[in-house]
Amino acid sequence: MADYTINTKAIVTTPSKDGKLNWNMHNVKLRNPHEDEVLVRVVAVGICHTDIVMSHIPSEYGLYPKVLGHEGAGVVEKVGSKITHVKPGDYVVLSFDSCENSSCYNCKNGHPSYCTAFTAKNVMAVPGVYKLEDGQAAAGSYFGQSSFSEFALVQEKSAVNVSDLIKSEEELKLFAPFGCGFQTGAGAVTETADVQAGDEIAVFGLGGVGMLAVMAARIRGCRTIIGVDRVQSRLDIAKSVGATHVINTSGFENLEDDVAAAIRSICPAGTNCNVDTTGVLGIVQVGLAALQPKGQLVLIGIMRGLTLPIDLGTFLATGVSIRACIEGSALPKKYIPQMIEWYRDGKLPIEKIIKQYAAEDFEAALEEMHTGAVIKPVLIW
Amino acid sequence: MADYTINTKAIVTTPSKDGKLNWNMHNVKLRNPHEDEVLVRVVAVGICHTDIVMSHIPSEYGLYPKVLGHEGAGVVEKVGSKITHVKPGDYVVLSFDSCENSSCYNCKNGHPSYCTAFTAKNVMAVPGVYKLEDGQAAAGSYFGQSSFSEFALVQEKSAVNVSDLIKSEEELKLFAPFGCGFQTGAGAVTETADVQAGDEIAVFGLGGVGMLAVMAARIRGCRTIIGVDRVQSRLDIAKSVGATHVINTSGFENLEDDVAAAIRSICPAGTNCNVDTTGVLGIVQVGLAALQPKGQLVLIGIMRGLTLPIDLGTFLATGVSIRACIEGSALPKKYIPQMIEWYRDGKLPIEKIIKQYAAEDFEAALEEMHTGAVIKPVLIW
Repeated sequence: MADYTINTKAIVTTPSKDGKLNWNMHNVKLRNPHEDEVLVRVVAVGICHTDIVMSHIPSEYGLYPKVLGHEGAGVVEKVGSKITHVKPGDYVVLSFDSCENSSCYNCKNGHPSYCTAFTAKNVMAVPGVYKLEDGQAAAGSYFGQSSFSEFALVQEKSAVNVSDLIKSEEELKLFAPFGCGFQTGAGAVTETADVQAGDEIAVFGLGGVGMLAVMAARIRGCRTIIGVDRVQSRLDIAKSVGATHVINTSGFENLEDDVAAAIRSICPAGTNCNVDTTGVLGIVQVGLAALQPKGQLVLIGIMRGLTLPIDLGTFLATGVSIRACIEGSALPKKYIPQMIEWYRDGKLPIEKIIKQYAAEDFEAALEEMHTGAVIKPVLIW
Repeated sequence: MADYTINTKAIVTTPSKDGKLNWNMHNVKLRNPHEDEVLVRVVAVGICHTDIVMSHIPSEYGLYPKVLGHEGAGVVEKVGSKITHVKPGDYVVLSFDSCENSSCYNCKNGHPSYCTAFTAKNVMAVPGVYKLEDGQAAAGSYFGQSSFSEFALVQEKSAVNVSDLIKSEEELKLFAPFGCGFQTGAGAVTETADVQAGDEIAVFGLGGVGMLAVMAARIRGCRTIIGVDRVQSRLDIAKSVGATHVINTSGFENLEDDVAAAIRSICPAGTNCNVDTTGVLGIVQVGLAALQPKGQLVLIGIMRGLTLPIDLGTFLATGVSIRACIEGSALPKKYIPQMIEWYRDGKLPIEKIIKQYAAEDFEAALEEMHTGAVIKPVLIW
């Protein structure tokens, strides 16, 4: 037990039962950092739908118990001997991890979200990072951080140093979701699709990812920005952060046809870009059909076991594209500072979509996430 | 008949019978140019598969008789009163047409191959451009040119002025296919996919389009360039123009599996870009499956009535894209001069893939195109 000298609180996940999440706060012991790891005192962590998806994986396919959380921000406590880019006391926003020495082709070229080891380094957790009260081992370093933990063992590339950009620990708490959901939504628009001033765009699903896509579309000067959701309060916020039009799908009898007609009534020729964060097959099909020539459909929402049939004749004749987007195609150490700058300039009004909860109130956060009452819940340690 | 004072020879197309092309050389009369048209003496015209596809459209769906041909090059004879970008005597390469006054969104933004009027302006021919010997009208201005005609009535945007770049009429004959097939293949790589130095790419089908994709991949500094075809002579030429590896599919028992295995033996992690010019569904599926994360599958080959089923879970997890490519996403007035410059620098050895025929020998050209003996047949007027 010599290695496990760090006492911390953490939300420990065990396999869900009957579709109910099994998250419980525990006092646990954390392993000391290796030479290429960073110990971070987490001040805030966003909850993302991926955390929920990963809690429902059957125990045959996932390590349990484990500590999730991958939108952390905090203060460096201690660094391993090989760590040079942060030092104790530095403010860090935590993001995803990628391969050793950035050795794969996409990492070498500045595209680590398409790292060949992305799944292994992020979605899988590392065994033996924690010891529970009863001596049982728990997995951690999920997305290189496992920040549902007051102290987190963070992998080198997951720690983005933002010390020079942050005014206070209080402010840092706002930026926790930059490392995943927010960079995914903004990057989908600016990096993956690279939309241009004057373009017309629709964003399907106005959670945290969709809202950042709307904000990024406004930053890029899109002429038309259509927010699509079934919750009116989200549509109202979308309008206040950049949407020029909104479509409330809650009363639609035929979802696909009615959404398609609503978009065509705003953009008769179709849109230049559609971003799907819903993972609903029918919505993805509308997103494809509503594009004008050269249009891009960007897919973010998780869709397992679904098949999209593409009519190739139409696809070719209209000259469109379908692009999967991972982490907004962003390079975190460049893109997170960029997002902080946009925030400073009033261009990323993220305070409108964040609600903070004490970490121990995570169940309330989950409940409000489920009902749609909160857009981006953030736990404060 | 006052308008039809220009005597010319032209290959007139009537509906195919029993799958056989119905192309016949006629002495015809051509309408005089309107104020926004250009009369061009065509010196050479490439034959493209699209001409063949358009000859098989049932008479209910297409205008007949008509004059095809859309890879022309020639010398300006006469211009309408509103034409200012070319004058009599200028050398022109002919390309596709787009909307009036470049008024649609993509035209305004320099992407005319994604013009909302692309099909109407190019694939459809304009009625009454020609009068046949018996007084019957024939359609023309197909792709803004109908250059299977010694004299052609060319639409304003189809005429790209290359007078300052061309040394002689003889040289101009080489560049005829730049306006469609060659810009499509090169542009697929440099404009649509925008591949980077060090990327790995496979090109499926080594006709004129595929060969230009190979040449463009070499220009961009791709590390691995795999040419895939079933004709050994084409594979040999591909190696001489840039392919680092070739795959001969002629002996494959299970086409899809064997091509996939061959690509993986060269690029174990998969390729960054695959370009399909075959229009064969199984090959398109291999092209998708053989991509590494962030990889792009670019579709060019015509595929009507085919459906590609996409497993969205895999598509998202690997972070790939599928993109339809029209005319290489090129702006002809910029891209054709760029291709001429590459040719001058020895980077586009198009002479290796072109075979010239006297226009009256078009049947021999079609026959050698069918057998694969010629890659890009060009008719000389």
